[in-house]
Amino acid sequence: MIELLGLGETALRQLGFVAAQADSRCFLDQSAWRIIAPLPNPGKIIGVGRNYGAHSQEGGMARQEEPRLFVKLSSSVIGPGEHIVSPASVHKLDWEVELAAVVGSVMRNMSVSECMQRVAGYTLLNDISAREFQFDVTPPQTTFAKSMDTFTPLGPCIVTCDEISDPGNLDLKCWVNDELVQDGSTSDMIFPVGYILSYISRFITLDPGDVIATGTPAGVGHFMKPPRYLQSGDRVRLFCPAIGELHNTVE
Amino acid sequence: MIELLGLGETALRQLGFVAAQADSRCFLDQSAWRIIAPLPNPGKIIGVGRNYGAHSQEGGMARQEEPRLFVKLSSSVIGPGEHIVSPASVHKLDWEVELAAVVGSVMRNMSVSECMQRVAGYTLLNDISAREFQFDVTPPQTTFAKSMDTFTPLGPCIVTCDEISDPGNLDLKCWVNDELVQDGSTSDMIFPVGYILSYISRFITLDPGDVIATGTPAGVGHFMKPPRYLQSGDRVRLFCPAIGELHNTVE
Repeated sequence: MIELLGLGETALRQLGFVAAQADSRCFLDQSAWRIIAPLPNPGKIIGVGRNYGAHSQEGGMARQEEPRLFVKLSSSVIGPGEHIVSPASVHKLDWEVELAAVVGSVMRNMSVSECMQRVAGYTLLNDISAREFQFDVTPPQTTFAKSMDTFTPLGPCIVTCDEISDPGNLDLKCWVNDELVQDGSTSDMIFPVGYILSYISRFITLDPGDVIATGTPAGVGHFMKPPRYLQSGDRVRLFCPAIGELHNTVE
Repeated sequence: MIELLGLGETALRQLGFVAAQADSRCFLDQSAWRIIAPLPNPGKIIGVGRNYGAHSQEGGMARQEEPRLFVKLSSSVIGPGEHIVSPASVHKLDWEVELAAVVGSVMRNMSVSECMQRVAGYTLLNDISAREFQFDVTPPQTTFAKSMDTFTPLGPCIVTCDEISDPGNLDLKCWVNDELVQDGSTSDMIFPVGYILSYISRFITLDPGDVIATGTPAGVGHFMKPPRYLQSGDRVRLFCPAIGELHNTVE
């Protein structure tokens, strides 16, 4: 099995891994290769909670003064097409489409503009969460709820900053099966990417390859009335026009 | 500078890095070497909150049904003698002596006895916390409060299981300067080491070199009346008879 790291649809067509046209042939049979996450084992993944106005409202939460941070363990990362596996005792499995910033060089105590100059690029991240560990226990265990094995689909590729000059104006969508459940824009972020990076860098040194999950727009399952959670067989598809699609199926 | 990884006092004497007797000579001048953490960059560090009866009581918290888990970022690890550095905006810096279990081989969905057979050994961990991020915000940001740079002193060495057959019967002490502030025993743990490992392994695969911080006994600064926090120049010293001492100074 050939493992391809972080290639998007365009690159796969250009390299001949998928047919460019209906009648063209592929370089290799699709059973001989698979795409893995562009960063299969990042040094760290830091997430920001409630960073979109409408998502913050749907959760009935007060607007916050500073970013609220949590961690997703790197051992939870999976790539495009890999299965999200729910532990036996988890029944409130939920989706979250997020823009993820990838750190390009060290950030420590840096300004917003210094941080933005050090971003390598952007990818998509599905911040899968076991909501019973986030909302049904006191105190909440946000990091644990989001760090279980397979809970961080990442990819399909890292798009560099020359192609995404403004991460604050990107559409983000999420479908569960064929239903559009999230349809937002990064322009709705409370704290923009550069602010988040600069804030974190005052407390935690960011290293090349670190991933920052910048929050999710409205439309998660937990806040639907009635709540809706992922079931075995559900297909989750994330989309950002500048980055591509990230598909994963729940097992 | 020679970096020595995970050597305890006895080994340092035996190898001649420190004088075995008052009149004996050292192998190398002490300015030529330093001890680094026995695991300078573990794959993951998972902590357990409120795992000692008396510590749970001092915080006025209800006894929990299952372990409460958080993460400490590996980038926060420092070794014996390195400085704990408080970020400029942190004013509630606190100590926590903990027994840390080091994973020896993969644990996934395993029983208590299977997990215990896969422990490599034990070391000391100081679970330094910025209490304002843990207790003064809603929801608490436990993981962030405990993951800032230099917030995880670890060491001095990993003592293997042939020397620690029962991790449930170890004395743990912490001094700040010359004052004994924590004086507990792992026999007071609510969830023993094996239970914690087995519980985590149902959700998160544990890999060799992963570190589990098993909670702290009573006596942290935040729950003193009035509260007491670490100041620049304070020396924190952890001790467990079976493992040794871990010293760090606050900068």
